[in-house]
Amino acid sequence: MAKNDSYSEFLSIAIDAAKEAGEVIRKGFYQTKHVEHKGQVDLVTETDKACEDLIFNHLKLHFPDHKFIGEETTAAFGVTKLTDEPTWIVDPLDGTTNFVHGYPFVCVSIGLTIGKVPTVGVVYNPIMDELFTGIHGQGAFLNGNPIKVSSQSELVKSLLGTEVGTKRDKLTVDATTDRINSLLFKVRSLRMSGSCALNLCGIACGRLDIFYELGFGGPWDVAGGAVIVKEAGGVLFDPSGKEFDISAQRVAASNPLLKDAFIEALRESE
Amino acid sequence: MAKNDSYSEFLSIAIDAAKEAGEVIRKGFYQTKHVEHKGQVDLVTETDKACEDLIFNHLKLHFPDHKFIGEETTAAFGVTKLTDEPTWIVDPLDGTTNFVHGYPFVCVSIGLTIGKVPTVGVVYNPIMDELFTGIHGQGAFLNGNPIKVSSQSELVKSLLGTEVGTKRDKLTVDATTDRINSLLFKVRSLRMSGSCALNLCGIACGRLDIFYELGFGGPWDVAGGAVIVKEAGGVLFDPSGKEFDISAQRVAASNPLLKDAFIEALRESE
Repeated sequence: MAKNDSYSEFLSIAIDAAKEAGEVIRKGFYQTKHVEHKGQVDLVTETDKACEDLIFNHLKLHFPDHKFIGEETTAAFGVTKLTDEPTWIVDPLDGTTNFVHGYPFVCVSIGLTIGKVPTVGVVYNPIMDELFTGIHGQGAFLNGNPIKVSSQSELVKSLLGTEVGTKRDKLTVDATTDRINSLLFKVRSLRMSGSCALNLCGIACGRLDIFYELGFGGPWDVAGGAVIVKEAGGVLFDPSGKEFDISAQRVAASNPLLKDAFIEALRESE
Repeated sequence: MAKNDSYSEFLSIAIDAAKEAGEVIRKGFYQTKHVEHKGQVDLVTETDKACEDLIFNHLKLHFPDHKFIGEETTAAFGVTKLTDEPTWIVDPLDGTTNFVHGYPFVCVSIGLTIGKVPTVGVVYNPIMDELFTGIHGQGAFLNGNPIKVSSQSELVKSLLGTEVGTKRDKLTVDATTDRINSLLFKVRSLRMSGSCALNLCGIACGRLDIFYELGFGGPWDVAGGAVIVKEAGGVLFDPSGKEFDISAQRVAASNPLLKDAFIEALRESE
């Protein structure tokens, strides 16, 4: 099988898995408001676990020799080291707080790395029915239509996405709001959606011009979105300006025109 | 005509106007990415103006004796004083930055005050096709289905919505981020959507538990949402804890259970 054919097959199977899981998420999303709080937490855990099982089983059926890294599995069994083998990196439910609150930015994120390079990406928001896809070298798409990053070249006219994360110690919170304070003087405005994977897709389709997040959960938050950003003409990098490391729990993304100014602004914000 | 009948007629006509304007917004929304920046600004202004004309003409045709306050008209002719007369207060396009960037939180907001009391409200997001409606004493609805505020009673489990506004002087930005810093220690997380009217509807349907915004444009940002929040069982108040004043460019909203703790947290954040 030619390489491009196999990539297309990987994507097609991943889309099937994402849509199946999306259906489970959609059902849960409209139930959370009708259960007690204890039940809500259970519902998140159950949905998360059910979706990961469903996705892994689907992928393993087709690709028994591939490796798998998932948020739920890792939480249970510790970190799995990323190797050069074809490896599916899955966040079955990105945006769990949104899921509990019924805020419509939730998604399934599936990424395949080959030789540690993000090669196939699927990010599916089942509430807004938005399917973002990308294959290394073959472009990025939203519901089948080609997408590209914004053409904005001025930081002061840029829409910034970021998140406040989940850590609430004084050092982290102060650093977070100091950074935002510094950046607000340099950009047009700020959005927080609550989903790292969807923020990356926001960069890919030009809804956001620049995005950074520090201290998110793991590679599953970025593995799917990384391919989609790159294939939409965007760039991923470490907020310090260094190379993007999928395992570093730090990410920044933008179109290429804004990269240098954005890194400079991020540095000045530290 | 009985009072309830006339309220229903007011709502029905307002929905027609919102949907007509929504169609114009939807078309522009998918065009902004394909025009040069100068053209983008023109497109916003044109869309804003076209939608306000369209809405006012529609409403005036049916209610020639009513008063009208609109963002565009006010920008051109100065502030119109709110009287006890039936007064339509209209934001033809809330979330203009989102409109330019293709971020899907944009809406039409239409509110009718009678005796200065918000009595009929329509907030329509044409991109997500979400129509929020409310009539004083008759409940609040999303696409025809009843909605209610969240039942969350603990601030620490609450999802907070706010915005960073458009002012970029040091005093305002420092106050904005200091407030966020203080609140982050007390709530679960933070969302910024870029639309005041849709944030109010987020409170009404329980997607957000608490929301505040200081220094927004004018009464047109809150006139539609105010009825919807109240009819969904929510409360509106000034962030200081004082009574909500539709002309004050300051608003806070929550379910009744969270109000006192939220005001306390807002006071401590000053």
